[in-house]
Amino acid sequence: MRVVIINTGTEILLGDVLNTHLGFIARAIFPFGLRVERQLAVPDGAAIADALSENFGRANLIFVTGGLGPTTDDVTREITAELLRLELVHEPVLAASITERLTTRGIRLTDRILRQAMVPNGAQILPNENGSAVGLYLPAGVNPALNSPHLFLLPGPPRELQPMFQQFVLPFLERIVRRDEAVSYRNYRIAGMGESYVEEAVGAQLLSLAGLELGYCARMGEVDLRLIGPPAVLAEADTIVQDRLAKFIFSTSGESLETVVVRQLARSRKTLAVAESCTGGFLAHRLTNVPGASQVFLAGYVTYSNEAKTAALGVSSEAIAQHGAVSEVVAGMMAEGAREKSGADFALSTTGIAGPGGGSREKPVGTAYIARASKDGTIARHLFFPTDRETFKQLATQMALNLLRTTLT
Amino acid sequence: MRVVIINTGTEILLGDVLNTHLGFIARAIFPFGLRVERQLAVPDGAAIADALSENFGRANLIFVTGGLGPTTDDVTREITAELLRLELVHEPVLAASITERLTTRGIRLTDRILRQAMVPNGAQILPNENGSAVGLYLPAGVNPALNSPHLFLLPGPPRELQPMFQQFVLPFLERIVRRDEAVSYRNYRIAGMGESYVEEAVGAQLLSLAGLELGYCARMGEVDLRLIGPPAVLAEADTIVQDRLAKFIFSTSGESLETVVVRQLARSRKTLAVAESCTGGFLAHRLTNVPGASQVFLAGYVTYSNEAKTAALGVSSEAIAQHGAVSEVVAGMMAEGAREKSGADFALSTTGIAGPGGGSREKPVGTAYIARASKDGTIARHLFFPTDRETFKQLATQMALNLLRTTLT
Repeated sequence: MRVVIINTGTEILLGDVLNTHLGFIARAIFPFGLRVERQLAVPDGAAIADALSENFGRANLIFVTGGLGPTTDDVTREITAELLRLELVHEPVLAASITERLTTRGIRLTDRILRQAMVPNGAQILPNENGSAVGLYLPAGVNPALNSPHLFLLPGPPRELQPMFQQFVLPFLERIVRRDEAVSYRNYRIAGMGESYVEEAVGAQLLSLAGLELGYCARMGEVDLRLIGPPAVLAEADTIVQDRLAKFIFSTSGESLETVVVRQLARSRKTLAVAESCTGGFLAHRLTNVPGASQVFLAGYVTYSNEAKTAALGVSSEAIAQHGAVSEVVAGMMAEGAREKSGADFALSTTGIAGPGGGSREKPVGTAYIARASKDGTIARHLFFPTDRETFKQLATQMALNLLRTTLT
Repeated sequence: MRVVIINTGTEILLGDVLNTHLGFIARAIFPFGLRVERQLAVPDGAAIADALSENFGRANLIFVTGGLGPTTDDVTREITAELLRLELVHEPVLAASITERLTTRGIRLTDRILRQAMVPNGAQILPNENGSAVGLYLPAGVNPALNSPHLFLLPGPPRELQPMFQQFVLPFLERIVRRDEAVSYRNYRIAGMGESYVEEAVGAQLLSLAGLELGYCARMGEVDLRLIGPPAVLAEADTIVQDRLAKFIFSTSGESLETVVVRQLARSRKTLAVAESCTGGFLAHRLTNVPGASQVFLAGYVTYSNEAKTAALGVSSEAIAQHGAVSEVVAGMMAEGAREKSGADFALSTTGIAGPGGGSREKPVGTAYIARASKDGTIARHLFFPTDRETFKQLATQMALNLLRTTLT
């Protein structure tokens, strides 16, 4: 089954609103063995008709989002009816439910709002429990004279579309889609290894498996390896991947590295503190984004100045003078100081030159040291990420988190 | 000029990655009077060729994102060359720069990586300062036998695409787009006032100005007011906006609130420390994202546990027992402690319940206190943002930064 998504809305094309529908629908239909073949975004108005008619031949199933509301630029319902040569009929039950909904909320009824009770002949209604615009399902060939695909018209606001999809679209999909049990999906999140090394490690062997589709996606400080294929082939592929990459894989269920680290700490009943210079609080931020982080995360010290490194963490000013604030020695002392001051089981530290200023010949912008302290001692690593400030922070914190993850595994 | 964006990447259509390119490019080209007429997303592979050729007739300017990397699924460069019947030529300078880039980073060169030095004949190179895949610009009619539009091939990762766009694509747009001098654009960034209050303050008066197009965009903890129109009308509008909203406007040049605060501090030669509980390092992170922050930001204390509040900041355990860690009193003590320990001129603090757990009847999830300490004393504010964890952090840090900004103005 060929699936197309058409997102309508001028605000999406102006960049005022991020389009989250594609991601939501793609994940929701995946268990049916369905994948989105193409997604389009077009402005409100006549462009919707072009987008629809162009894809009538291409697709078996089209999801249209937006344009079902009461304002003048909401024309999806009318355009679809015209294109399919279906009459718009007044649905008294729908009119009553819209009237009731708005009266309860003290909103005045207008003709525009009641236009939402007009439905193309033959359409099935998808109730909207979070707004007044209902969705519509037009079965394939709803007008026997035309060879149209299955069409779902859905509201634009995600908080209306998403519950409607779960509750009312999925049951229709159960009926119209023959589930292809023969395809499954796996996603490996990998840290500590670059994209081309991942491909080198497993690419040739995976490509030799018939029926397996693979993809790589490089994110900052991690690589996603995605496999799609029949379950038996996927099992074979999994053996290859685990065999070569096991210690680099931190999640097969889409979790972030910080989520994995917080869970590892919670399971082993250990606590963590962090001491940050160049990452400026970002490491603490990532950890505290994880719900329940307060169970394992005790304290963070953002010691930007040398004085703060000494005062808050007890790093000796001699060490700073001798090795420099950006050094393996100071990174180690920062981690040890954070562990001691907070009483945590583990501490991570970062110190480096994020740039754009502050570099030197010996220590250019992008240089960093990270360290991990525990009761078993302290280890430090040298990093070099000559890039922009925010990417530098992302990469350095990723390496620090991975340094702890590999200890806790 | 008709603009089309084609986003390639199976990960986008699978819903693994949110497509942020449309929003970024739409905002970046807006000042040229350009609007995106259509956006498409297609998987890696042959679908790219269809999407391109279908839009050759429709568009004058096409931006393609993704598929320029080193792996087997990166085929945008090859497909474009084939479609435009251009030879792929080896660029020795590009090969040398890729080699140098990777060698500096200690990454081993492979044939796949060096494929990125192959360029369609006639293409201009858009340097990539944050990755090895360069972008390409193919001028309209680059193959005189074909009537192709202007084509920009850009890398998929946003942190590579965005700086490349700002630095190398915009200058080309300057040359190929005739700017409509009769229209200018202004964007006000506003903090401390909600969207409907902004509209109430200026909406009616602005709507009475002929030829002015206005838009509101509510972001987290701020509102953007966007005005488009002839320069004379815009000047009139500016008088209205400044008259009503001056003290709420923190930037008219698109700067972030943290950038404004760091500049204010640097100008007045003042320093800052922060003490964070519920925002978990995010306030320090935002401040240290600003280049040059090290001149004004001395230290951050992420005191998640009560013990850390006492040990690192000297908050008395009696105060915590009496008022609770989430209280106006403790917020004030945290700010004062941070100011004292770091020796900074100003200190900001946050304490609250980010959720999902930890709420109570008196202090439900979403409750927070922020405080600002200076030589002139300490003031605190009560906040209530019952939302998800990351939004809560964004809103609380926004309020804290604005509390300092209004003092420094």
